[in-house]
This record gives sequence, C-alpha cells and structure tokens, in this order.
Amino acid sequence: MARVVVDVMLKPEILDPQGRAVQGALGRLGLSGVADVRQGKQFVIQVDGDLTGDRLALMHKLAEELLSNPVIENYSLTVEADA
Amino acid sequence: MARVVVDVMLKPEILDPQGRAVQGALGRLGLSGVADVRQGKQFVIQVDGDLTGDRLALMHKLAEELLSNPVIENYSLTVEADA
Repeated sequence: MARVVVDVMLKPEILDPQGRAVQGALGRLGLSGVADVRQGKQFVIQVDGDLTGDRLALMHKLAEELLSNPVIENYSLTVEADA
Repeated sequence: MARVVVDVMLKPEILDPQGRAVQGALGRLGLSGVADVRQGKQFVIQVDGDLTGDRLALMHKLAEELLSNPVIENYSLTVEADA
C-alpha cells in the first residue's frame, strides 16, 4: 500500500484571487505581516502495492494531465510507502 | 519570514464525491489498484518575521475557523522557517 500526495498550485506568475482574498481576510482578522497567500489543491491517493516503474510514471503523467492544468498549474508528487 | 502550509481535508467520515470521481478517472485512464482518493485544499502563507506564541495561536485559530469548516473538515498546519 502506497500513499501518494499530489499538491497542485497555480504557477507563480498566475494571479491567485482566492489567495489574495484569504490574505486580506487574515489581515482583517488580526494576523499581521501576511506577505502572500496561494491556494491550491491536494489529492491524497491510496494505491495498492508498490508504486514504482511504469505505474509511478503513469501516476506522474496523470498528476500532470488529469489532476492539474499544466498551462497554469504546477504539481508536486510525493510517494509515502505505508503499512 | 516564515512559510506556513495549511492542508484542509474532509473528515474521514464525510463522503468525498470529488475524490470518488478522481478515483474512477484514474482507474479508467489505466492506473490499477487505486483504493481511495481524497481531495482537499492547501494554503501556502508567507508571513513576515517569526510565527510564534500569540501569532502562532491566532494562525491556528484562523486555520480552523477561516480556512476550514470544523464541522466537516480537519486541518493540519506546518510552519517552515525560511530565509
């Protein structure tokens, strides 16, 4: 059993209005010095067996093409083997 | 400068239709053995100065009440000091 975490975040050059709204709200609610907020998506995927070789390559391909939009988003993929 | 990462995920007992849809899509696109998918939100927050004491307590409070819905979601908060 492997646990795969895919984080999808807007590319730095893309405006993030949701993050900007959160930044404003944090300030109004009393948290000072908030310089930047970016909002993204996180997928936690449980996969049977080990995720290696071709399956890992396919997981990367799907993270890039299904879970994120490569035109405006970057993804990062972490595999944690677990019991 | 501190980097705060807040991950917000539906509680395990709450159905996650988006995660279920992604699970189905991963299978149809050839990734075998996908046992579960949960979709959540991730906030990456850059804060000036150190985040300790009262400010860290406030950050936790806002993560629970502003960034997540404590009725249906759990959050996890990680502070990474960076240059």
